[in-house]
Order: sequence, then C-alpha cells, then structure tokens
Amino acid sequence: MTPKSVPSETTDRLFFYLRPLMCLVNEGTETVLSRELARICRVKPSVVRKDLSYLGSVGTRGVGYNVKSLIESIRSMLRFDQDIRVAVVGVGNIGRAVLEQSRFELEGFRIVMAFDSDPEVVGRRVGKVVVEDSAGLEERIEAEGIRLAILAVPESAAPKVARTLGNAGVKCILSFAPCELAMPSNVKVTCIDLSVTMARLVYHSYSEEQCEGPG
Amino acid sequence: MTPKSVPSETTDRLFFYLRPLMCLVNEGTETVLSRELARICRVKPSVVRKDLSYLGSVGTRGVGYNVKSLIESIRSMLRFDQDIRVAVVGVGNIGRAVLEQSRFELEGFRIVMAFDSDPEVVGRRVGKVVVEDSAGLEERIEAEGIRLAILAVPESAAPKVARTLGNAGVKCILSFAPCELAMPSNVKVTCIDLSVTMARLVYHSYSEEQCEGPG
Repeated sequence: MTPKSVPSETTDRLFFYLRPLMCLVNEGTETVLSRELARICRVKPSVVRKDLSYLGSVGTRGVGYNVKSLIESIRSMLRFDQDIRVAVVGVGNIGRAVLEQSRFELEGFRIVMAFDSDPEVVGRRVGKVVVEDSAGLEERIEAEGIRLAILAVPESAAPKVARTLGNAGVKCILSFAPCELAMPSNVKVTCIDLSVTMARLVYHSYSEEQCEGPG
Repeated sequence: MTPKSVPSETTDRLFFYLRPLMCLVNEGTETVLSRELARICRVKPSVVRKDLSYLGSVGTRGVGYNVKSLIESIRSMLRFDQDIRVAVVGVGNIGRAVLEQSRFELEGFRIVMAFDSDPEVVGRRVGKVVVEDSAGLEERIEAEGIRLAILAVPESAAPKVARTLGNAGVKCILSFAPCELAMPSNVKVTCIDLSVTMARLVYHSYSEEQCEGPG
C-alpha cells in the first residue's frame, strides 16, 4: 500500500496517535484496545479502528494491539521508520530550546548539527552538538544529506538562509520566522506563527461564548 | 455582522493578511491593491477580494485599500481591536524567547506577567516583566482578568498548571507541552507540537516526490 492511498485525515491522526502510544510504552504497557487509544486521543473508537485498519492486520479482537508493533507499523506507514536527521540553524533562545529538548531523540529526531553566525556562540556545545559557523552551512548540510532543517534565525535573515538551505538539498523547513518564505515547490515549509495562533485562539474563544449564549 | 456569519476559511486568511499589511505600514506604504496583497500572501486575487468584502466597503476601485484602515477593519472583525494581554507561565528557553520577542507588542499582544517556580528565576526581569513566583499564579491571573496564557512549563507540570489557569479564568492556552490537556470546553487550547509538525513535513516531502515520479 502506498501512502497515497491513505486519506490525509488518517495520516494526520496517525501522527497524533504516536505520542500517547509512546507514553504507553514508557509506562510499560504492552497492549492497548482501540477504545482506550480513542479515549486518550479524544477521537471516536470507530475512527481509530478505521485509521488503524490502513496498517493491515495488527490487532487481535478482545486483546487489542501490541503497542510496540503498532508504533512500528504507524512509523513505517508514515515514512518515519528511520531516525530523521535534523539541522538547527540559529542558536538563540528558540534554537537553544530545540537543541536542549531531549525528547526529540526518543521520538525519532536526531539533531546532528547546529549553526549560528555569532562568534560568541560558534564552537559552544549546546545539547548534543557543537555549534558550527553559518559560513559553512550549505556545504555541510549538502555533505550530510540533511532533509529537515529547523530555522530559528531572526526574521530579517530567514529568507536568505532558507534559500541557502534549499540549495543545499533540504526538503523540509520548520521555520519560527513570522514571514513568508518563497521556496521552490519541492521544499515544504511550515511556519510556527505564534501571533496568528494566539489571535485565532482568542477569536474562537469569543465566538464560542457567543454560540453558548449570553453570560 | 456577527463573526458567525463569516466562513472560518475567511477568518483564517484574514489573520494571515494582517502580518504583510503591518509590514506595509512599517514601510510607510499607504494603500494596497487587492492583487498586491494577493501576490504577497500567495492567494488568488478573487479570494482576497471576497475575504475583504466581509469587512464592508473599505476599498476604492483602482486606488485600493488604505492599509491602516484595512488593518483596523480586520482587527475589529477578528475581535482583536484591543491589545490582548498575555501571561507567560514557565520561563525556560521557550518562555524566555517569547518574553524577549519585541514584535508581539507591535502586533497587539502585551505580555503583562510571567511566572516560574525556580527561585533563581523569580524576581528577574525578562523582556518587559519581572518574573513572579508560580505560587501566586491563580490569584494574580484572576485579579488581572487574563484571557490568554502561554504555557511553557515542562511536560510533567503542564496538566496541573493548565487546570490552575482554567480555574483562574483563562480562556485560551497556547501550550508548548507535547501532551493532551484535558480542559473544560470553554477553554481553548492550541498545542505547538514540533515533533508532529516535523514528522508531517517529512512525510509530505516524500509523498510529493512520489507524486512527481521517480528521480
């Protein structure tokens, strides 16, 4: 079965199932019923069962799913069966937070390099890597064949750095810069835009109050 | 016109129009044509015109929209015409990055308080606020009538702190903790989950390659 035959709503939810499943593994839980997973994820049990059916036969009626096998099946379907090697560009507060986040490794992301242009930062160890000079960014990323980069440079520098990453062969950019990055179509960009997210939250909190009537 | 009568796709896009419009204001641009805004936002001009039509008559054919009025109209429609006062809970790397982000203020978010439980951090000035002791969280947030809180505490503490925020009257939580927060329905939660976002980016970058054929 190719990923194309799975609805995107299903792949989206499969991503979300992964985290509670990993919590279960860490707690030593060996099997999980679809309705338990549904309750944890606040999704209808029938939806969970439908989603997991795309993985083929991995559960046993009445017994449930072996949690480890389920994680493996999901990761395999999501093209996430191998660790994803990541480069972090920009080691300010956000870059540092990412580099020091030990759970990424547990979840299958291996941060293998970090870059900054500040001589005060270059050469320092942050998390598990030593920060390299941004001057060598393109060459190093290309040589290591990095697919995913986290862009945490100031907004003014982001478009240029993003282009450099694209030139180096990066296919996915997670950007914290609140600006549009014009990239070729073969480079996927997701922008974490906190202002838009906050404004939307507030808007929906007011709409909800309105729907619920006065008070 | 109540917000309910505006399609959510439109309100979503209106949020996204705000940022380029603010860039235009900062550059001293007074008017903008819908097709210019469309180009910047990479949306069809007809879509931009449709979206802006919900604001009432704010543009002039051939001349375009007054940028400042347009921003005001959008913000008014999005219930964002007053500054949104924000509390930050947890002053680690992420909390610090948020507190030191000066553009939030330009965009209408005013961070008015920050909390941490670490005695080393409490009492320090970060950004524009002095970090307060988390012990006083509920009382202080309730007294100030804070609607939106940014939750940047460790995952293990997040559910308890979120409940406290809900008890204090917070209606919106932007959480950086990668876990489900079980909150009453009148509290909106958005979780910034970097792992899920990264996994999804990588998945789609592979799917795209497949769609584009071999090579």
